[in-house]
Amino acid sequence: MSHTINIMLAGPRGKMGAEALKLIERTDHFHLVACLDRKYDGMKVQDIEGLPALDAPIYTNPNHAFDQVNADVLIDLTNPEAGYEHTRLALLHQVRPVVGTSGFTDDQLNTIKQLSTDYETGVVIAPNFAMGAVLMMRFSQMAAKYFSDVEIIEKHHDQKLDAPSGTAVKTAQLIQESRPSQSQGHPNETETIDGARGADYDGFKIHSVRLPGYIAEQEVTFGQAGQTLKITHSSTDRYSFMSGVHFAVEQVMQQDDYVYGLENLME
Amino acid sequence: MSHTINIMLAGPRGKMGAEALKLIERTDHFHLVACLDRKYDGMKVQDIEGLPALDAPIYTNPNHAFDQVNADVLIDLTNPEAGYEHTRLALLHQVRPVVGTSGFTDDQLNTIKQLSTDYETGVVIAPNFAMGAVLMMRFSQMAAKYFSDVEIIEKHHDQKLDAPSGTAVKTAQLIQESRPSQSQGHPNETETIDGARGADYDGFKIHSVRLPGYIAEQEVTFGQAGQTLKITHSSTDRYSFMSGVHFAVEQVMQQDDYVYGLENLME
Amino acid sequence: MSHTINIMLAGPRGKMGAEALKLIERTDHFHLVACLDRKYDGMKVQDIEGLPALDAPIYTNPNHAFDQVNADVLIDLTNPEAGYEHTRLALLHQVRPVVGTSGFTDDQLNTIKQLSTDYETGVVIAPNFAMGAVLMMRFSQMAAKYFSDVEIIEKHHDQKLDAPSGTAVKTAQLIQESRPSQSQGHPNETETIDGARGADYDGFKIHSVRLPGYIAEQEVTFGQAGQTLKITHSSTDRYSFMSGVHFAVEQVMQQDDYVYGLENLME
Amino acid sequence: MSHTINIMLAGPRGKMGAEALKLIERTDHFHLVACLDRKYDGMKVQDIEGLPALDAPIYTNPNHAFDQVNADVLIDLTNPEAGYEHTRLALLHQVRPVVGTSGFTDDQLNTIKQLSTDYETGVVIAPNFAMGAVLMMRFSQMAAKYFSDVEIIEKHHDQKLDAPSGTAVKTAQLIQESRPSQSQGHPNETETIDGARGADYDGFKIHSVRLPGYIAEQEVTFGQAGQTLKITHSSTDRYSFMSGVHFAVEQVMQQDDYVYGLENLME
Repeated sequence: MSHTINIMLAGPRGKMGAEALKLIERTDHFHLVACLDRKYDGMKVQDIEGLPALDAPIYTNPNHAFDQVNADVLIDLTNPEAGYEHTRLALLHQVRPVVGTSGFTDDQLNTIKQLSTDYETGVVIAPNFAMGAVLMMRFSQMAAKYFSDVEIIEKHHDQKLDAPSGTAVKTAQLIQESRPSQSQGHPNETETIDGARGADYDGFKIHSVRLPGYIAEQEVTFGQAGQTLKITHSSTDRYSFMSGVHFAVEQVMQQDDYVYGLENLME
Repeated sequence: MSHTINIMLAGPRGKMGAEALKLIERTDHFHLVACLDRKYDGMKVQDIEGLPALDAPIYTNPNHAFDQVNADVLIDLTNPEAGYEHTRLALLHQVRPVVGTSGFTDDQLNTIKQLSTDYETGVVIAPNFAMGAVLMMRFSQMAAKYFSDVEIIEKHHDQKLDAPSGTAVKTAQLIQESRPSQSQGHPNETETIDGARGADYDGFKIHSVRLPGYIAEQEVTFGQAGQTLKITHSSTDRYSFMSGVHFAVEQVMQQDDYVYGLENLME
Repeated sequence: MSHTINIMLAGPRGKMGAEALKLIERTDHFHLVACLDRKYDGMKVQDIEGLPALDAPIYTNPNHAFDQVNADVLIDLTNPEAGYEHTRLALLHQVRPVVGTSGFTDDQLNTIKQLSTDYETGVVIAPNFAMGAVLMMRFSQMAAKYFSDVEIIEKHHDQKLDAPSGTAVKTAQLIQESRPSQSQGHPNETETIDGARGADYDGFKIHSVRLPGYIAEQEVTFGQAGQTLKITHSSTDRYSFMSGVHFAVEQVMQQDDYVYGLENLME
Repeated sequence: MSHTINIMLAGPRGKMGAEALKLIERTDHFHLVACLDRKYDGMKVQDIEGLPALDAPIYTNPNHAFDQVNADVLIDLTNPEAGYEHTRLALLHQVRPVVGTSGFTDDQLNTIKQLSTDYETGVVIAPNFAMGAVLMMRFSQMAAKYFSDVEIIEKHHDQKLDAPSGTAVKTAQLIQESRPSQSQGHPNETETIDGARGADYDGFKIHSVRLPGYIAEQEVTFGQAGQTLKITHSSTDRYSFMSGVHFAVEQVMQQDDYVYGLENLME
């Protein structure tokens, strides 16, 4: 049905890169034309242990890759430093980048935006590829206009070091932008044990649960007299990110400009 | 802050009408100017047992009410027959109707729409005033574009006669409109006890739970590889509808046209 | 089926007492023989506005009541001061008390226990009559033997002043007694916003959510590698306590000793 | 702290057997003395690709294994046919079997029970090793004594073929045994779409949800006027079964008789 999309993948041996290789393998009209890696220059994907039987060549020098290979899309799942360089080069060659990172500086984002305009080439930068998480954040932002009271509970495995999670804080920011600032709860409420009421974020609360057996889950609950509305996202497998990569690749082929965040690709 | 909105209320002694009276009492810039009722013509609200101490007059003849009273908005919480007549009269008098019903015929809706245009008077018809339920349906419709698999579980008290609930069926319709038709689950799945997999609606499933202790709750769960996204609305009190009435009254003052469903008033 | 149980009720005009009157009315073999109240001595229940049409006499002097009326069971839903006096008198008259309070001192409990033994009369003191809450606490205590990691989340309306709730603290105590003390979570975990990880109770965490739209709910979640077990109790109506009163009345008729807490009446 | 337990493992290359090898490796006082397998007689565990670096010998002939190796416990995670033979032999050699199967016939169970008595050797047969699932079933059985109304919702990935799940049916049986038979819901309730009310099991309902993104989850919800009590078990990883194997191994060392089901090892 769809015509073939030629894909260059940066970071094929990382955790996310390995999932992306599976995605490309499983998707009929996705075709891997090259990989960017720090090692194995000149070898083929199928020659590397643990990688699937694809005959795309590996390049350690991205300049060579973009010069020699004809790609429609670059999927970059590396790190902010390498990712920025790959994205810049891709745009110069009118290859459309889909980049998974929240680590670019404002300056870097501005440069990418300018290159996208100059070369009339679409680019998608996505801090989060989990479609469910992106929708959860978007719905939270919408609901905050109509429900003034909200709390966030996020639940992760007990090896996680930071609390609250990055997704919880990002969700809280979006809620804050969407409603007038207010302090929730009874003005005279007291904690008989410190911390019971959770972390305060602009007057509402965030709670972080850490237990073995959990992977990653977040509940955003809105309340008003007589009703509650709860949005829950649960991740059970790293492959969950791939639906977002798939979506971004399809979308970036249909646009010539810069998009930050998958939510801005959704109608 | 806001200037006063003069309100005529139809049905002050019904369950919903009584809640609406409380809403009007509690809202500073809402002012009750008259009630339409089947009884008590010429009396005042405060004279009727069980109603609050408001001195608005009661009319049994709606023509008299619209002729003699200057209202900005009509809130109608009666029934489709009376409600249609009240709505028609209100528009003829350029009073903006906010009507809670799912019972109007297509012909009636067309007439209302035409009157709204002719008299340049806004009107809101709302099958459901629970903001949380409206948002749940809207989010479900949006999520169905990005998650192809979904099931609905609705939970009510065990005195409810019909299954699935009206809200579940309405949600299912919106999901159906929003995604390509498909049959979910494994093609060879079998029920060892009939009904285990629930009610089929265009290839996805609806489950109805009935237990004492529940009031009204609905979960819409979307799944794809590695993640789930769940939207849950829970009603605990009839007053939950009043935030929607409040919202509709504010909105109808700012528009001159016909709107069906609160979801179409949300940005 | 069951033979009639003659009941004296203390506190018929309180919130709980009013529910108990409904319970007695609705239960075929429960028969109200008298009420203890601070007012209305010599009147009948049916003479008091708001109370049901029962012809039991009201006593303000409990001595007179116990002297003149033949009761099998005293249901006391007053307060610790009055409740203690009523319980003591009931035992002296071999009337079996069912008392809803967590407010008796250890000395008072010891006296009641001794009187129960001396007069060979059963007595049930219940800090909580909600069967679901009692079972939640019991299950939590059992699960804590097999799952070393646990967190509690309790959710109440936003007019509640104290956090955590009394039920959450009681549950935490039972869990503490049931497992070896341990500090959960990663030893190096950090809060980027104070309070995110909740209140610490002997190494595990309690989180208190306060939102309009909630009534009263508690989740106790146990986790271990690869699985979680969650016990959730939700109250939607004060009448929920009456199943516990009903159960306690039936049970106290079949025993001659002292029982503290409904959990000790369960097999 | 504990003295060493010498373990013979049957089925080291199966999915569950591989998890059991990890368990043994990670547990200080568990020591692997031999494996029973269909292949690789005479080799060592560490010689087989994919197995951990343990030097225990592999036997294809269980008679030889029991004659030559001194084991305290046999863990059998094979299949009913092989498992029965291994269990029988183990008892004859006074090695305590821990067997994961629901597939033994009544005759086989009777023989095992008799051998356990004759040889004064403990044995544990466990249809389910997930501690959380076992507790969920036990709690359900207990709650059914005090809450007459219940429904079960089980949620699995969409590749599962049968509905309801085996665990749901087993839970339903335990509930049925624990309460008087009754038909729940309103006597006049009707389904406007067939199957909405789920599968009927002795008057209560079971609902089976199948969505990608789920692994395995079950909710058992009890309701009565004004309250609900819900028990939820969620499995996210096959390793969840190992806490039950660990528990059974410790327990079988402390008993000389036959036990069917982990629930009977719990206090």
